[in-house]
Amino acid sequence: MKVLINDKIVDREEASIDIEDRGYQFGDGVYEVVRLYNGQFFTFDEHIDRLYASAAKIDLVIPYPKDILKNLLKQLASENNIHTGNVYLQVTRGIQIPRNHVIPDDLPLEGVLTATAREVPRNEALFVTGGKAITDEDVRWLRCDIKSISLLGNIMSKNKAHREGALEAILHRGDTITECSASNVFIIKDGVLWTHSADNLILNGITRQVIIKAAGKGGIPVREANFTVSDLLAADEVFISSTTLEVTPITTVDDTVIGTGLRGPVTQKVHELFEAEIVAECGELLPV
Amino acid sequence: MKVLINDKIVDREEASIDIEDRGYQFGDGVYEVVRLYNGQFFTFDEHIDRLYASAAKIDLVIPYPKDILKNLLKQLASENNIHTGNVYLQVTRGIQIPRNHVIPDDLPLEGVLTATAREVPRNEALFVTGGKAITDEDVRWLRCDIKSISLLGNIMSKNKAHREGALEAILHRGDTITECSASNVFIIKDGVLWTHSADNLILNGITRQVIIKAAGKGGIPVREANFTVSDLLAADEVFISSTTLEVTPITTVDDTVIGTGLRGPVTQKVHELFEAEIVAECGELLPV
Repeated sequence: MKVLINDKIVDREEASIDIEDRGYQFGDGVYEVVRLYNGQFFTFDEHIDRLYASAAKIDLVIPYPKDILKNLLKQLASENNIHTGNVYLQVTRGIQIPRNHVIPDDLPLEGVLTATAREVPRNEALFVTGGKAITDEDVRWLRCDIKSISLLGNIMSKNKAHREGALEAILHRGDTITECSASNVFIIKDGVLWTHSADNLILNGITRQVIIKAAGKGGIPVREANFTVSDLLAADEVFISSTTLEVTPITTVDDTVIGTGLRGPVTQKVHELFEAEIVAECGELLPV
Repeated sequence: MKVLINDKIVDREEASIDIEDRGYQFGDGVYEVVRLYNGQFFTFDEHIDRLYASAAKIDLVIPYPKDILKNLLKQLASENNIHTGNVYLQVTRGIQIPRNHVIPDDLPLEGVLTATAREVPRNEALFVTGGKAITDEDVRWLRCDIKSISLLGNIMSKNKAHREGALEAILHRGDTITECSASNVFIIKDGVLWTHSADNLILNGITRQVIIKAAGKGGIPVREANFTVSDLLAADEVFISSTTLEVTPITTVDDTVIGTGLRGPVTQKVHELFEAEIVAECGELLPV
């Protein structure tokens, strides 16, 4: 397996980072996960644009122009022969010796880029059967719009869900549903799709954005507006979305069965519309 | 320079960590900074106990018993000939391949310990003259009681302060002052010391705890209770506390001069009481 360190593609075994990388000591970095279908990147520009936008919000300079970064990632995917898989990439603010919260004025830091590429098949069974979610208090910071690697709050909720045999934790800040630990959440009520507005309390998922656009084209009304825990539990259908999960139904939340307890017709329709976007960009999705 | 990686003391140049260490990809770890005076660790047990307590709150297992960890850190300080300095240590949840938010049930992860030891003299001039602070909205998560390496919120505030020529950012959640980006904050009003209560919104600093105990012994009344931005700006004296800053006066907040604009008598008395605690544990603080 090959990985990317800065602008070098190297064997996995050769890859290492410094103990005083600010990513390691402060969670001071940003990341993306980009999906490939048929060996083609899906919504590549959108992910790359968001990476640079996240970086700009924390005054971190990505050490490469977008086109060079994209070429490096393409080469990484190609050298690992990725057909259907994920490229994970992160950029930290770089190595600072000695450790100091303060970013030095007189010592320009050089961002450290690392990336991996792995085959990750589509989980088509899960897309149909869906799974269970729990609700959990959203204790994360107030800048969830930044896709940063300071993820401990997300980790705690995700693993609480995992321990309870659930796929995801749907987070609420007070009574308002925000998003999940590693995905966005949508509810359907009377044929209308609802999801939290794209403000500082959620990460504006690329999959979320594609769904909103595709649903609109497909005639499904969408409201980017807040809804409550009660609205969630009383929804006709619930699904979560992410780069890897695409459109995954949630059929039980805590102890409440959602709708019929099976993937609903609107969720199915949304997924078909989403798949059409993949096909338009990456070609036919053939059964494996 | 020697550093500690797990239970090995190695040359700085030999030290590296894996790109898929959860500390690097998720900020999934905890840390401490412990100070030495006269080559002796100050409040060593308190720091080590807090490290284990932070780890327990995120279900992270420190890979060594406390006495072994303490011995490794003592050896590290000794091999680096630390007289007055800091030992930084962090423990992450370990390497997980491939990256996944979910901590695997069937693959026990091994925590990764890294530590450095460096000479850092006492900044006695700063302890007398003090410095400026800004106020900044506290956007951090709701588990600031955990001393985690997911520190991007702290970093953003600290560097905002730095860009504005200030020593620290004093954070407020709504109208309530919580703490600073890398220290606790105290105000003095009518001879009484006030600081935020040790709940989930602040890191209960070891220096903070020593100050509270020492002030009590010295006859200075202490209230661990919330106060507001207005209370801060109208205070007679303000100081911040941390392992390295000890008791550092804040003489200006934003554009408001605090009290006389010089270190106040209660702040000076508190620092003397704090120094007495150092002397009792580590011996006389001789001028350098």
